[in-house]
Parts: sequence; structure tokens; C-alpha cells
Amino acid sequence: MNDQDIKTFQVAFDCDARAVGKMRCEMDVRLLYPEKIQWEFASDEYSFHGGDGTAPLPIAYFMAGLTSCLMTQFRAFAKRLKVKIKDVNIHCECEWEAVQIGREPYESSPKSISMDLIVESDSTLDEIKKVIEAAKKGCFIEQMMNKQNEIKHRLKVGDNWIIV
Amino acid sequence: MNDQDIKTFQVAFDCDARAVGKMRCEMDVRLLYPEKIQWEFASDEYSFHGGDGTAPLPIAYFMAGLTSCLMTQFRAFAKRLKVKIKDVNIHCECEWEAVQIGREPYESSPKSISMDLIVESDSTLDEIKKVIEAAKKGCFIEQMMNKQNEIKHRLKVGDNWIIV
Repeated sequence: MNDQDIKTFQVAFDCDARAVGKMRCEMDVRLLYPEKIQWEFASDEYSFHGGDGTAPLPIAYFMAGLTSCLMTQFRAFAKRLKVKIKDVNIHCECEWEAVQIGREPYESSPKSISMDLIVESDSTLDEIKKVIEAAKKGCFIEQMMNKQNEIKHRLKVGDNWIIV
Repeated sequence: MNDQDIKTFQVAFDCDARAVGKMRCEMDVRLLYPEKIQWEFASDEYSFHGGDGTAPLPIAYFMAGLTSCLMTQFRAFAKRLKVKIKDVNIHCECEWEAVQIGREPYESSPKSISMDLIVESDSTLDEIKKVIEAAKKGCFIEQMMNKQNEIKHRLKVGDNWIIV
């Protein structure tokens, strides 16, 4: 293989979510390709938002996904770049603000996302920075946060789907 | 209370992630405010990415968070807007593309995000569309995806933190 060969691959996931109980949400999440794997998840709200607290909050899953995605790519790319790492810890923090007028549903907006890494390694600072840079570019979730995405919403009306 | 009163509230989560085994990542996720709640999560990779498959993939958590966040706000705001809903199902699908040159770490980029809703209700189409619109604006994760975020990365070097 030529070192300059360019390979492209696609990754797709889907999730089917069902409304259960007061605010509980049960989900089947599937990796569709390049491999096929399926998992079950459940979220719930706590009493302050009308739920029964039977499962983690939706945003807790988001936090776990965002943080573990960077961690995974950091470890995978350290190996690929042959930078020896003894240990790594990541602290991620996300803040949002929500605004509510009278009794209207509130509107939310993100305020900050930060990732603090503690890396134990005998490698040089430049080598570690190179791994972090590769992990940021390879992290599927960070790359999604780094751009403005268009989320397409459709509603089924009779036998048809309409854009909403 | 005056209906035009404007209230603002902050929401913050954090996550501490530790590298375990080959590619396993163990996490403590905390809601910091307005309430304090904590959960434990673990992610892993499967053999095709050098892991042992002991826990879901990082992106699976992201999918669960994104889908359940919209589901939760849909149900919460249907109640607040007094729109009766018998049942709701959401199908979410996300695609990415990754590009790799030779043996370099690959770079990933998002391709599409879609949300298909099936709502069982005797309410009018306009009422249901109003709830979906409110849910989209209230969903903390969708609102994060709708804008270009700046993710701050820091690395601990000795006793100091440097921007990376």
C-alpha cells in the first residue's frame, strides 16, 4: 500500500425511542455500518421535571458520549502515532442557559464546552500535543459540535412524512 | 406572576473519564446545577477498533442522549401547552464520513442528522407542530448541534494548564 493512499469510510448509527411511563424513554441504538451492533438504553427525568428518576437524564448520555469519544481516539491514535502513554484522564464540562417567558416552554442555548486532559507519559510535550490534535480531528462527536448542523425533522401524517 | 416575566436558568454537567483496559473508558457524570445527581457509565470499543466490547461505543451514548432529549422536551412541552398526546416514537439517524491518508489517524466529519416523529394524538396538526417546534428549541443537545461550538482543550503540564 502506498502511504499516500486516501481511504474514505462511512459511519452510521440510528436510535428508536419509545415514550414509557411519565417521562421515561426506552431506546434501541444500533451501529448500522461499518459493523452491525445493537444496545438498549433508557433515560428518565427526576421529580423536578416530572419524571420518576428510573434512569439517567438524556444529557448525562450526551456527556458520556462526548467525553469517551475523545478518550477513545486519544488512546487509538497514540498507538498509531507510536506515542507511549501510561495513563490519561479527561474532565469535560458543559454549560447551557435556558430562558423562559411566563409559562411558555423554555428555550435553551449552549454556553461552554471544555475538555481538560491529564496525561501520564514519558513522551515529549510535542508528541502528546500531536496525539491530542489527532484525537480532536478524529472524534466524531467533537467534529459534529465544531460545525453548525442542519437537523432534519419529519412528522408522519397518515401515510406520508412532512418536514416540520 | 406576570405572564411576561422572563426567567433565566443555568444547567451544567461534568464528566470525569478514566482509561481502563485496552480501550474501556469508565466515567462519573454529574449534573452540577440546578440539581446535583451523579451516574456511572462505561464505554468500550469492539475488536475492529482494538477493544474488548465490554460496554457500548461512545457514539451509542451520544445517540441515546440526542434522541431522548428531544423525546423528553416533546412530552414536557406537550403538557405545558395542553396538547394531549397518546403516544410518540422517534427515529433518529446520524451519518459521518472519515478520511484517512496512508497510515495517518483518520479525520471525521458529520454528514447528516435526521429525526422522524410518529405522534398518536387527537390534537390538530398545528397543535402537534407547535409542540415539536417548542421541543426543538428547548432540547439542550439539538441547540448545541445547531451552532458552531468552540471546544476548549487544556493539558496539564506540571502544575499548570496549557491550551492545546
